[in-house]
Amino acid sequence: MKLTLNETARWLLEHDDYLLLTHIRPDGDTLCSAAALARGLQTAGKHAWLLDNPGMTGRYRAYVGAYVAPAGFRPQHIVTVDTASETLFPDSAAQYRRSVELSVDHHGSNTAYAQLVCVQPEKAACGEIILALLDLLNVQLDREMAQLLYIAVSTDTGCFAYGNTTAETLYAAARLVAAGADNKSVNKEFFRTRAKSRIAVEGAVLSGLQFYRNGTIAAIVLTQEMIRKAGATEDDLENIASLPAEIEGVDAGVTVRELGPGRSKISLRTTDAVDASRICGLFGGGGHAQAAGCSIDAEPEEAASRLVRALETHWA
Amino acid sequence: MKLTLNETARWLLEHDDYLLLTHIRPDGDTLCSAAALARGLQTAGKHAWLLDNPGMTGRYRAYVGAYVAPAGFRPQHIVTVDTASETLFPDSAAQYRRSVELSVDHHGSNTAYAQLVCVQPEKAACGEIILALLDLLNVQLDREMAQLLYIAVSTDTGCFAYGNTTAETLYAAARLVAAGADNKSVNKEFFRTRAKSRIAVEGAVLSGLQFYRNGTIAAIVLTQEMIRKAGATEDDLENIASLPAEIEGVDAGVTVRELGPGRSKISLRTTDAVDASRICGLFGGGGHAQAAGCSIDAEPEEAASRLVRALETHWA
Repeated sequence: MKLTLNETARWLLEHDDYLLLTHIRPDGDTLCSAAALARGLQTAGKHAWLLDNPGMTGRYRAYVGAYVAPAGFRPQHIVTVDTASETLFPDSAAQYRRSVELSVDHHGSNTAYAQLVCVQPEKAACGEIILALLDLLNVQLDREMAQLLYIAVSTDTGCFAYGNTTAETLYAAARLVAAGADNKSVNKEFFRTRAKSRIAVEGAVLSGLQFYRNGTIAAIVLTQEMIRKAGATEDDLENIASLPAEIEGVDAGVTVRELGPGRSKISLRTTDAVDASRICGLFGGGGHAQAAGCSIDAEPEEAASRLVRALETHWA
Repeated sequence: MKLTLNETARWLLEHDDYLLLTHIRPDGDTLCSAAALARGLQTAGKHAWLLDNPGMTGRYRAYVGAYVAPAGFRPQHIVTVDTASETLFPDSAAQYRRSVELSVDHHGSNTAYAQLVCVQPEKAACGEIILALLDLLNVQLDREMAQLLYIAVSTDTGCFAYGNTTAETLYAAARLVAAGADNKSVNKEFFRTRAKSRIAVEGAVLSGLQFYRNGTIAAIVLTQEMIRKAGATEDDLENIASLPAEIEGVDAGVTVRELGPGRSKISLRTTDAVDASRICGLFGGGGHAQAAGCSIDAEPEEAASRLVRALETHWA
């Protein structure tokens, strides 16, 4: 059943003992939105905690670790945050696949796997939904919630540069900074700091850049060897998928990451010229119209050429 | 004499026939702030035009060209926008050095060379001051003004990622997008597009990266030969000065650009740990606490080492 924001807030106020789940390969939006919701619910007198996510990097754990469920917490209600489908559950959440009661999400592709669904696809980040929910929960937005939600919103919009950023997103960010979010330090950490290992891995992938369809498609391949040689961490690899789409004249940027032998993960970023979600859907993936992903059982070079062929065939 | 925003708006409404000057090596803030002010004054029934600036790149001329003074325009009042000192006048403005009546600026280092000075150093961009002035001029913010001011504010804050971005900056940006600024296309053009020549020039400067003071100072040198080899334009070089300061652990990022034989231009970007304006002031330059510049009569490598020595000596 679809819920409005008001109905979602009312349901949250009527129940207690929430376990909040985040998606696999967790990013700033899923983790910090969930942590802000946990803190908001705690402020409203509820018990609410995040299920630990084994993919959480150290950078995020520093902000979110305090909201991970303590040993012995017995949840009554399972809520997912920013998680479009059960296939995106991390291993730690496998046991909850069939018992999710509420899914709070901004992905239009949400598969409605939960009993109750609060999906707002017009929001750039799930953090904007949580901000609206905190208001409806009558929770005072404190500095810590503001900080978490600022990380959620800024990371999902590339610091307000991606095409999903609306006037509402910027109003939300302004409110969060006015409420005490330290945008200066968050921006410095997430958007204006490049480790030497990041510079090295970027150099490696850009040196293998390939163009197709008169330069409108650009593809990069990120192998495990490149990652090892550069000494790159998961934090170093964040947003690397946005690189090929940022080259002049490119409408579809393809990033292929080698996951293991014969297994590749694709990230596709597009302009209005191509529906990324539709193309990735051909390979069993999904996402947004301008940013989507899928997995392909093939070596990176082969996976790249399959995806490029699909783009060429289905170009609008 | 210092003017408040109200007094500035009243003065603008009481006079007519304005020529608006922009600074040398013009950026998005000086050009688009001046163009938005020109349009606002024109909407209020005044004659107001920009003095052409020979340093304006094609990218900006596309937005601002329509506001350049037509031949035969006879100004009565000279106004500078975003120009901290007379030494920053382009050649085309040399004749007006002693006749500036009003300076509208957000640089705390403004030398008060004009008869009337409206300086608001707490504003991240001069565009925020113009937005406030348009309100006080009772001008309806139209889509075109919003677009110009969005370019001004976003370029001066690195798309809201620089340390100068405040809640007020984000509120201003939200207002501008709500008023019709096409942030999606502006962001794509200014922040999410890298020409192949930009990628080449970035690779060249980063390969010569030097560290000092246990990695807290990073310096890059940009020679005319690097620019020629990469086929880079002025547009490609925009914000290149922010690269060294973005490396992990760096508190002072130094970019030295070769201007000609024995002549170098320095851009210094710092964290709170160092006052960039003070260091550049030692060489006759100036700017903001975290972003400043100066010129040094020396070859790039020598200029870099002089600036690095000044940083090491005067480190707070």
